[in-house]
Amino acid sequence: MKLLEKTIRAIPDFPQKGIIFRDITPVLAEPSVFKHTVESLCEKAAATNCNSIVAIESRGFLFASAMAYKMNLPLIIVRKPGKLPWKVEKEEYSLEYGTDTLEIHKDSITKTDKIVIVDDLLATGGTAAAAARLVKKLGGSVVGYLFVVELDGLGGRVKLSEAPVESLITYKEEG
Amino acid sequence: MKLLEKTIRAIPDFPQKGIIFRDITPVLAEPSVFKHTVESLCEKAAATNCNSIVAIESRGFLFASAMAYKMNLPLIIVRKPGKLPWKVEKEEYSLEYGTDTLEIHKDSITKTDKIVIVDDLLATGGTAAAAARLVKKLGGSVVGYLFVVELDGLGGRVKLSEAPVESLITYKEEG
Repeated sequence: MKLLEKTIRAIPDFPQKGIIFRDITPVLAEPSVFKHTVESLCEKAAATNCNSIVAIESRGFLFASAMAYKMNLPLIIVRKPGKLPWKVEKEEYSLEYGTDTLEIHKDSITKTDKIVIVDDLLATGGTAAAAARLVKKLGGSVVGYLFVVELDGLGGRVKLSEAPVESLITYKEEG
Repeated sequence: MKLLEKTIRAIPDFPQKGIIFRDITPVLAEPSVFKHTVESLCEKAAATNCNSIVAIESRGFLFASAMAYKMNLPLIIVRKPGKLPWKVEKEEYSLEYGTDTLEIHKDSITKTDKIVIVDDLLATGGTAAAAARLVKKLGGSVVGYLFVVELDGLGGRVKLSEAPVESLITYKEEG
């Protein structure tokens, strides 16, 4: 993905000193690159035989929405606490300091659902793993994980070992 | 929009007692309805002669991403504080109690940009008005506002009077 490599912007010391943040906003702002990114994700999603897409708040929404539109698949969202108005299932996950929680609507997934989980970034894999637990709690199965950017060396892939993990571009540093 | 009307779910007493929350997650989950919603928004966007889309975090992302993909237009995001990694412009807006802030990347808009601002919901119009001030601070012009749902009676349209305001479905209560 030469196009992506040229377009993603490296921002040093964000959100804290020593971290290089991979900024995908220039990808969104360049229609040809965004189109190519979305279609590359769709190809990888199609290869999983998924019948539904789960998007993780909130940068995951930016790619999964266009994918769902293009692929004509249901789009299910996983959100931070207190945002989803109906009955929810919750899962905690670890942050560097403390924990956070993700929620999903209880009626959003059925037992025939074969889900790909979509987010912009794979780092430690904590949020994607929590999203997968939510899918499974509701009886769905996870058939793949898709990311635009992967930061190698943080153990994300290991945490998501039960289904194929795909990303469009990998950075070797630890993010 | 009969389809939308049948699909949006009314949830009483969310986020607080006496409020009817209009839940758009069933729209996302039903591909034919989502497609119809996105394409209706695209038609309205095309009528403004916009050349760029500004999406408001985070439910706005769910519709604007598919629109940007479909229309082949740049997608620019407006976010809560501390999320955008590059240099930002900020705007405060009023909430029922206190204020909140929106941010936009300083280099995301140029003087030739004709922007439609997209969000899922128009209520008081505070966030959309703040997004419009951000666009104008950066030299862009706002040529329209697009919402999936409009709650009538909260004065949103008045606050956004300088450019056309369109929504796909309007609820009369103050919700």
